[in-house]
Amino acid sequence: MGKKSDAYKAELIKLQTAIVAWRRWSMETGEKVLVIFEGRDAAGKDGTIRRIVAHLPPRTTPVIALPKPTDRDKTQWYFQRYVAHLPAAGDCVLFNRSWYNRGGVEPVMGFCSEAEHEAFLEAAPEFEAMLVRDGIKLVKLWLDISKDEQAKRLASRKSDPLKLLKTSPLDAEAQARWDDYSAARDLMLIRTDSAKAPWTCVRADHKKALRLAVMRHLLHTLAPARFCKGIAKPDSDVLFPFEAAALTDGRLAR
Amino acid sequence: MGKKSDAYKAELIKLQTAIVAWRRWSMETGEKVLVIFEGRDAAGKDGTIRRIVAHLPPRTTPVIALPKPTDRDKTQWYFQRYVAHLPAAGDCVLFNRSWYNRGGVEPVMGFCSEAEHEAFLEAAPEFEAMLVRDGIKLVKLWLDISKDEQAKRLASRKSDPLKLLKTSPLDAEAQARWDDYSAARDLMLIRTDSAKAPWTCVRADHKKALRLAVMRHLLHTLAPARFCKGIAKPDSDVLFPFEAAALTDGRLAR
Amino acid sequence: MGKKSDAYKAELIKLQTAIVAWRRWSMETGEKVLVIFEGRDAAGKDGTIRRIVAHLPPRTTPVIALPKPTDRDKTQWYFQRYVAHLPAAGDCVLFNRSWYNRGGVEPVMGFCSEAEHEAFLEAAPEFEAMLVRDGIKLVKLWLDISKDEQAKRLASRKSDPLKLLKTSPLDAEAQARWDDYSAARDLMLIRTDSAKAPWTCVRADHKKALRLAVMRHLLHTLAPARFCKGIAKPDSDVLFPFEAAALTDGRLAR
Amino acid sequence: MGKKSDAYKAELIKLQTAIVAWRRWSMETGEKVLVIFEGRDAAGKDGTIRRIVAHLPPRTTPVIALPKPTDRDKTQWYFQRYVAHLPAAGDCVLFNRSWYNRGGVEPVMGFCSEAEHEAFLEAAPEFEAMLVRDGIKLVKLWLDISKDEQAKRLASRKSDPLKLLKTSPLDAEAQARWDDYSAARDLMLIRTDSAKAPWTCVRADHKKALRLAVMRHLLHTLAPARFCKGIAKPDSDVLFPFEAAALTDGRLAR
Repeated sequence: MGKKSDAYKAELIKLQTAIVAWRRWSMETGEKVLVIFEGRDAAGKDGTIRRIVAHLPPRTTPVIALPKPTDRDKTQWYFQRYVAHLPAAGDCVLFNRSWYNRGGVEPVMGFCSEAEHEAFLEAAPEFEAMLVRDGIKLVKLWLDISKDEQAKRLASRKSDPLKLLKTSPLDAEAQARWDDYSAARDLMLIRTDSAKAPWTCVRADHKKALRLAVMRHLLHTLAPARFCKGIAKPDSDVLFPFEAAALTDGRLAR
Repeated sequence: MGKKSDAYKAELIKLQTAIVAWRRWSMETGEKVLVIFEGRDAAGKDGTIRRIVAHLPPRTTPVIALPKPTDRDKTQWYFQRYVAHLPAAGDCVLFNRSWYNRGGVEPVMGFCSEAEHEAFLEAAPEFEAMLVRDGIKLVKLWLDISKDEQAKRLASRKSDPLKLLKTSPLDAEAQARWDDYSAARDLMLIRTDSAKAPWTCVRADHKKALRLAVMRHLLHTLAPARFCKGIAKPDSDVLFPFEAAALTDGRLAR
Repeated sequence: MGKKSDAYKAELIKLQTAIVAWRRWSMETGEKVLVIFEGRDAAGKDGTIRRIVAHLPPRTTPVIALPKPTDRDKTQWYFQRYVAHLPAAGDCVLFNRSWYNRGGVEPVMGFCSEAEHEAFLEAAPEFEAMLVRDGIKLVKLWLDISKDEQAKRLASRKSDPLKLLKTSPLDAEAQARWDDYSAARDLMLIRTDSAKAPWTCVRADHKKALRLAVMRHLLHTLAPARFCKGIAKPDSDVLFPFEAAALTDGRLAR
Repeated sequence: MGKKSDAYKAELIKLQTAIVAWRRWSMETGEKVLVIFEGRDAAGKDGTIRRIVAHLPPRTTPVIALPKPTDRDKTQWYFQRYVAHLPAAGDCVLFNRSWYNRGGVEPVMGFCSEAEHEAFLEAAPEFEAMLVRDGIKLVKLWLDISKDEQAKRLASRKSDPLKLLKTSPLDAEAQARWDDYSAARDLMLIRTDSAKAPWTCVRADHKKALRLAVMRHLLHTLAPARFCKGIAKPDSDVLFPFEAAALTDGRLAR
């Protein structure tokens, strides 16, 4: 292991320690936190989440990755199965993918109708505004990976027996439908970015930079200042609030 | 049993039969129906509901009467525990009391703060609009009983051993805080009556008239015309759409 | 209505009143009661249950009629989905059909394998013994209808529009496979009758006699003596503890 | 990092890779696996589990660590809340502590009565036999730590801010009541070791040896031979089937 790696590890532990301290306070004061992780396949959602929760109690920091909806689920109110997992006092819930399935995978793969897609884009900001007004602290993260980097990661999954269970038949579509996914992402970010529930974009091609930036962002956004002493702000080249310009100025991959 | 009673019974069976026929169709076509029963203690919610569901399968026509919220429930999104019971395709869900607890019992009895009361009055119409846009057919019924009639019914409960388990420590408050309950009702009806989710008021002093009116209303509102052949419209003295005038013209009890 | 009907109604109310009184005590003392209703189609389970619970609070007296198991359910421990509904302190749970589906409908209709049927007959008494040792008061009722009476009731369902939703494609099989159902019943009663969880048989051809007998039995079995004052014992021609002789002496229908 | 550490890491990856391969097969064939991790505080349950599931999909490999029972839970059938998490086809469920709370923490800390403790010791083997007969593959692991090593680990938790949320008020009791915990463990192992559901003991003072031994054991016990090629048997000094002699011959800590 080299020096760079040591520095990363030291910073990671520093951030995890700050998160542990903040969570103790946040559990005691009964805050309700919901963090949504969205992004294309292989953007690094799992790995980032794993590092955030590494030293947190699973009961009050649940990671929610819902299975495909059942036939019955599909007929219910779209948000219903997610609502069951919203945070109670003291919880910090991490959604590994979320209701934004209907802003990305579903319309691109044809798993929902155009009308359902449109209805979702309309409803999501209203729904989120209700949660925020109810006292839930909501962070929405878009992890943005480039086409080449995704290709590399998907290929490495296929050849690594340790990652056998991470591969899925949809992997191939991620590259084949790259442009459709880009268009869906653009529409989703524009339509569902709101004052009460804004999107934060994170460039995901460098895993370590991604993880550090997300953890710093969570601390600076959610924790009182005393838990952020000595914690650097996230690098603005890596993590930035969504704005329409990012769709065209090269900050978001196409 | 006299002739009047026979006529009521015949009409009841006619309405129940029409409801059964409509429900078969509604289950097959996958409609989602939610009927909310609200009203003061002893207004006749239980008895009306029991007659509606008498010949309907409980699995697809569930009657939901939620227990007091747990300490954990209380910290969650206010609508969360109700959302779990929203209708899937083919369901007709009957709520015996509902989220409108926070528009009546809770503020009157001091079980919620003024801020929570206000936040609820703000959120309810938005929340309901989301459900309606999602395809849920929503009927909201306010069963309105007069002070004298309520007093009579609460007294009769106390003296009837068959109704031993229907009495509650809150019964006495219903009369003692009559005016507070009236004020809360007025505010609730005005603030949460909306184009997408309007209130229907039903005068509840005469139980049989109440039950027939509600059943007729459900049919005429929810069922296609062919299921309503020969079904009278509800008597407009008994059942009418809420309008502000009803608060002062004597149609709603004070 | 004649005198006979008046007498039935008076007795029904007397029994319901006694049940209400017992339930108040039973809820306060925190008893756990589970009553299983089994019997062929149209044996009168629904009607009997409805009269028992008429004046009891649904929350602590739930009637459980589980839907068909999902594909996932089918792979789980057979008793798992029933366990979720076992009584907590103060509850009186009524199972309208139960795990004994695997002792009747399932083997007769070919919905389970012979090995699964056999495993169930072996496991049921052990499982029930565990519940009883844990403090659950368990009553198992077999409602026994004759072939002719069942034919009559199934026919009447078909011609009565009020009962439209009670009919099912399995109705025809109940008569066509009458003898298979008899054989399955015999085996089930013999194999799963145990000291800790005995079967009680009730002749179901006369609905009123059935209902009164079941209600009397519940009181005399479950309630302290003071709640049974003036309550007749169930007629031993109508209700009796299972014994092998009943399979051949004409008391159980074939 | 030294050579020893490199060798451990290589072996860990080799075992994780074999587990991934076995799980793919086990998910496809629909096996039901339940692994129970028991042991004193700081015995290494969390860390061992984390390494087992590192590359497995959380949905089909859930780690279950139930919260304290609610007041309602406490009145239900003791096994009820665990039953809800039993494996369906394709699942491998890991219980981080289990119903054996009633064989250890609860009697030692006075959270259950002596009668409840005794009833549990009686019921557990019967309950487990039912699950095994139903086709669940059950592995029960007792992670055995020495008093000195536990003291060291509990102390290090207290001084490490990263482990702030792993400490609990019960930590002090683990050492103070060491002998009571030993006695409870002895009784539990003797009474609940059975042919159908035997205990496997693992010496836990050396974390890496513990983890490797457990992973090897799971493979050799649960996976067909072709998944175990090149996988060493667990070291018999570290992992061995429970037998009464182990209580006195020094293999289990006192």
